[in-house]
Amino acid sequence: MTVIGVIGGGQLARMMIGPAIELGIELRVLAESADSSARDRATAIGDFRDIDTVLRFAEGVDVITFDHEHVPAEVLDALVAAGVAVRPDPSALAIAQDKIAMRRVLDELGHPVPDWGVAEDSGQVAEFLARHGGRIIAKTPRGGYDGKGVAVVTDPAQISEWLSEGPVLLEELVDFSRELAQLVARRPAGDTAVWPVVETTQSDGVCSEVILPAPTADDRVLEVAADIGRRIANDLGVTGVLAVELFETTDGRLLVNELAMRPHNSGHVTIEGSVTSQFEQHLRAVADFPLGSTESRHPWAVMINVFGSMSIDRYARVGEFADVKLHNYGKKPRAGRKVGHVTATGNDAADTVYRARAVAEIFRADI
Amino acid sequence: MTVIGVIGGGQLARMMIGPAIELGIELRVLAESADSSARDRATAIGDFRDIDTVLRFAEGVDVITFDHEHVPAEVLDALVAAGVAVRPDPSALAIAQDKIAMRRVLDELGHPVPDWGVAEDSGQVAEFLARHGGRIIAKTPRGGYDGKGVAVVTDPAQISEWLSEGPVLLEELVDFSRELAQLVARRPAGDTAVWPVVETTQSDGVCSEVILPAPTADDRVLEVAADIGRRIANDLGVTGVLAVELFETTDGRLLVNELAMRPHNSGHVTIEGSVTSQFEQHLRAVADFPLGSTESRHPWAVMINVFGSMSIDRYARVGEFADVKLHNYGKKPRAGRKVGHVTATGNDAADTVYRARAVAEIFRADI
Repeated sequence: MTVIGVIGGGQLARMMIGPAIELGIELRVLAESADSSARDRATAIGDFRDIDTVLRFAEGVDVITFDHEHVPAEVLDALVAAGVAVRPDPSALAIAQDKIAMRRVLDELGHPVPDWGVAEDSGQVAEFLARHGGRIIAKTPRGGYDGKGVAVVTDPAQISEWLSEGPVLLEELVDFSRELAQLVARRPAGDTAVWPVVETTQSDGVCSEVILPAPTADDRVLEVAADIGRRIANDLGVTGVLAVELFETTDGRLLVNELAMRPHNSGHVTIEGSVTSQFEQHLRAVADFPLGSTESRHPWAVMINVFGSMSIDRYARVGEFADVKLHNYGKKPRAGRKVGHVTATGNDAADTVYRARAVAEIFRADI
Repeated sequence: MTVIGVIGGGQLARMMIGPAIELGIELRVLAESADSSARDRATAIGDFRDIDTVLRFAEGVDVITFDHEHVPAEVLDALVAAGVAVRPDPSALAIAQDKIAMRRVLDELGHPVPDWGVAEDSGQVAEFLARHGGRIIAKTPRGGYDGKGVAVVTDPAQISEWLSEGPVLLEELVDFSRELAQLVARRPAGDTAVWPVVETTQSDGVCSEVILPAPTADDRVLEVAADIGRRIANDLGVTGVLAVELFETTDGRLLVNELAMRPHNSGHVTIEGSVTSQFEQHLRAVADFPLGSTESRHPWAVMINVFGSMSIDRYARVGEFADVKLHNYGKKPRAGRKVGHVTATGNDAADTVYRARAVAEIFRADI
C-alpha cells in the first residue's frame, strides 16, 4: 500500500481524498486545524512551519506532497535529510515559492515572460515606471495568493511598505485579452501529460470561472500553451501537477504569468471535464504510477467558484439543474471565502456557461 | 451539515466516501473490522446484529442507510423506535431481505416474475420439479449473495439440508438470453430517476462484466426495464438506489430476478458512465436532496470486476490503457475475492469492452 502525506488541509487536499480511495492509496493529511477542509484524512494537526511536527507526520509515509507552496525551505530540507521522498522536489518548489526566483529562472530558460525587474527602493520603482509608461504591476515575492500581494502601481509611494520588507518584483502591465492556464503533470522519470489549456476569469484577483478547453478559433493557441507547459515542467524537473498561468496578449502571444506546483483552481474543471482529474493525476505522478489520459469527456466543461457560503439548505433549489455537479469544501461561511465550486458539462459552450452560472447564483451568499 | 451513517464497511460504503465529500455530507461507517474496505470513514467497529452497537453508532446521525441487506429486523425496529431515520424504510428492506417475501410481493403487485413456489419438504420439491420438466432453481430465502444460496436442482435430495432449516424458494429455470439490471433512485417523497438498463454477465454466479447501456436493437427494452424499475421503487416505497435484476427471455420478455435496495455491482459503471453515479445518487436520495441527472457521459461504458488481487505493483503495466479507470477496494488478496473493478468508456462498444478486459487481465491473480 502506497502512503501519500499531504502538507496542508485545504480544499486541494480534500479533493485528493476521493481519487486516493479509488486508487487504493492511503492519504494522510497534516491539517492546520480540526475544521480544515480535508479534516476527514487529517492524521495530524499542527504547524507546517515546525520541523518536528512535519517530521513526525512524515513517519511511515512513502512520499510527501503539498496542498500549498508555503512550507519553508528548512522544513523541506529536514524532510529530505530524513530520507523522505518529497514531490515536487524542494529545488523545484523553491522556484514556485519566490516570484523573483520564478521570473529569473523562466527568463533565463528562455520562456516567454513579461518584462520585469526587481526594486529595492523607490528610485528603482520610479525608473521602472518611467520605462513602462507610468503604470506597472508590483508583487511581493512570497506569501501572495488569490490577488493578495499584487498591486497596480503608478507611484512608488504605493508600495513603500512592501519595499521596507525587502525586494519587490516589478512587471510591465501586460495588454492581455484574456488569461489562460496550462496544466501539466509530470512523473519523476519525466513522462508528462497535458490537458487542453483552459480559459480563466478572475474577479477581484481570485479565479472565478474556468472553461475547458479555452475557446479559440486557432488551435495554435492550444499547441503553444501545451508546449510551454511541458517545457517548463521538464526544465524545472517538476513532479506532480504544474499549473502555468498565462496571459494571451491582444497581439496573440502567450506570456507566462505565474506557476503553481500542485493542483490548481483552474484545474477543478478536470474532475468532470477530463478522463483523469488533476487530483487523481497529481497522486499518480507523485506515487510514480503511469499517468492517466487527459482527454476531455465532453466538448465543454465550465467551473465556477462559490464564495461566501454553500449551504446544503440550498441544494433543494438546484433540482432544475440536475446535471450540474456540486463540490462543497465543508468550510464555515465567511464573506468572500472560497467555499466550493460547481461544474457543468455539455455540447454547447454558451449553454454550459449559463447552467454553471445559474447554479453558482443559487449559492451566492448575501453575507 | 447532514450526517449519513452507513451500516456495513464494504466496497459500497467505500465508494460513497468520495461523493459524500464533494456533496459536503459527513459520512460515518459502522464497519465489521478495522481492515474493512470503508475503514477510512469507520467511526465504529462492531457487529451490525447487536442492537446496542448500532444504536450507539446512530447517535448524532441524521439518517441511517446500508452497505448490505443483512441487518436484522429487530435492529432496524430499534433504530426506528429510537427516532432515527432509516432509509430505505425497514418495511421495504424486509422485502429485499427475504426472497420468498420478495417473490410474493412482486407477484401480488403484478410485476413480471418467473413461475415460483415454496417448498417445506421433498414432496413439494418433487411436485414443482414435475411441473417444470425436471429442472428448477432453488434459493434459500436469506443470506445468499454472489451465487451462494442458489442451486439448479434436478433431485429433491440435493437441497435436503436447506429444507431442514426452513422453507426454500423454488423457481422455474428461465430460458433467458441474457441478464440485465435496472437501477433506479427514489427520494422519500417519490421523485425517481432511472439510469439506462445495463447488461450484466455473471461468472460462477458473481457479476463480472457490465455494459451501459445494454446493447439492443430495440429501444422498447430500455423503456420496459425503466418502467419496471420505477414501478417497483414506487410500489415498495424504496428510498435510495434500487437495483432490479432482470432476465431477458429468448422470446423477448423481461422477468424480475432479484432486488437490492442499495448501490449494486451492476451500477459501478455509473461512476464514469453517468453524470451522477449510483453512489452519489444514493446519498442524494437518502439525504432528500434533488436527484442528479442519470444521463450517460459516453456512448458506452464497460465495468469489469477484478478478483483475487489488485496489487498496486501492477499499475505500472496499465500505462498503455491510460483512459481505463481503476477502483481498488483496498482488500487483502484472496482467491476469488472481489477486490476491485475497472471501467472503460468510449464511442465503440467492442473497443470499450476490449480495453476494460485488457486491464482486468493485468490484475488477474495467479493465486
